[in-house]
Amino acid sequence: MPCLYHFSLDPYARRMRLALAEYGIEATYQEERPWQPSQALLALNPSGPAGLTPIYVEDNGAAVCGAEALTEYLEETSDGSSQLLPGTALQRAEIRRLVAWFDVKFYAEVTEPVLTERVIRRFVAAANGSSAPDPARVRAASSNIRPHLGYVSYLAEQQSWLAGSELSLADLAAAAHLSALDYLGFVPWGDYPLVQTWFGRIKSRPSFRILLADHIPGVGAEGAISDQYF
Amino acid sequence: MPCLYHFSLDPYARRMRLALAEYGIEATYQEERPWQPSQALLALNPSGPAGLTPIYVEDNGAAVCGAEALTEYLEETSDGSSQLLPGTALQRAEIRRLVAWFDVKFYAEVTEPVLTERVIRRFVAAANGSSAPDPARVRAASSNIRPHLGYVSYLAEQQSWLAGSELSLADLAAAAHLSALDYLGFVPWGDYPLVQTWFGRIKSRPSFRILLADHIPGVGAEGAISDQYF
Repeated sequence: MPCLYHFSLDPYARRMRLALAEYGIEATYQEERPWQPSQALLALNPSGPAGLTPIYVEDNGAAVCGAEALTEYLEETSDGSSQLLPGTALQRAEIRRLVAWFDVKFYAEVTEPVLTERVIRRFVAAANGSSAPDPARVRAASSNIRPHLGYVSYLAEQQSWLAGSELSLADLAAAAHLSALDYLGFVPWGDYPLVQTWFGRIKSRPSFRILLADHIPGVGAEGAISDQYF
Repeated sequence: MPCLYHFSLDPYARRMRLALAEYGIEATYQEERPWQPSQALLALNPSGPAGLTPIYVEDNGAAVCGAEALTEYLEETSDGSSQLLPGTALQRAEIRRLVAWFDVKFYAEVTEPVLTERVIRRFVAAANGSSAPDPARVRAASSNIRPHLGYVSYLAEQQSWLAGSELSLADLAAAAHLSALDYLGFVPWGDYPLVQTWFGRIKSRPSFRILLADHIPGVGAEGAISDQYF
């Protein structure tokens, strides 16, 4: 059975877990902390320890590194019964534009500061007794998420799914980022009902079950969030 | 004729210009400053002003936004006479892994700080009289580039081109980043002869002519670089 090496809250890896489930591919999952990689991960990654989970390893040992490569690899090798890049070349370009918008812009302005300050620093601090969170970065993310959710609302209002009439990788990318932030109680759902409705629909898909089962030791879900950064 | 809206020194746009030339697609080029976008650019970009050049506009007005989307769009719509993602699904995954390595890791650790501090701050400062360069970021990039060039040497030693026996998008991504840095005199070529040889080969391709003709007003080429940041 193929194996995905991943960090549970990493939005790139979350998109890959959703994609594997949507394609109907059974896999095993190996939890990693990319900032403290295991020997197995280092051996799989030819370009050094940083930043290149998720890694997907086929039964024959062939490894595919990184969400960009794996996204296209899964679509190219799927049996065609599920497509996550449906449509014409231009429609596929729109899906990829939205995926990049979440993975580059939304990540830099929201997901990365929240994950780093709220979660990763805690692990790093536990290992070497330093690195207090930077509340200013979390406050900035808390402000940045609002116009971005406004844009997602706009998309959700236009069509059934974010990039068109069919579910696509764009929805999975959005759900991957927002579900990681939701785990940390960081999404002001109440102010964006269209986003909440869209999220409810994607959350009810069978593929989403794999994310709902997440429990990251030492990282509280909504109830356990400290208010000190707000 | 299609039009590419781009910023000359942006490595993502440089890869697109190389790709268009390799595919044999004639296009016009509209220079933009993404931090001060024109009305034309704003009208084309449905998700706001930041971070989404290059944009490619077909004769019929259809727009493709962002390097990730455009890369795959050009390959999907090309007539097949030139391929920049050659090989099996696994070989294509290796090409995409390397493109992402340059676009995410190399960009964050080398290209972005150098471009921002050396070039973009100068334009921004000219517009609003502020923003001195941060020499510490340039020094860090100057140190970061060395292990990365070591990795490119390793790749160049294994095979004719960076991802295999054929030229691919991985070579274009590498050449896009390194040629932007070379324009600013930032690449220690002498210490990495294998990278220099590989770069000489890609630089002699007809597709490269479009980059060699670049002249960015107010931005010195090698001879004009100030030593103050080293």
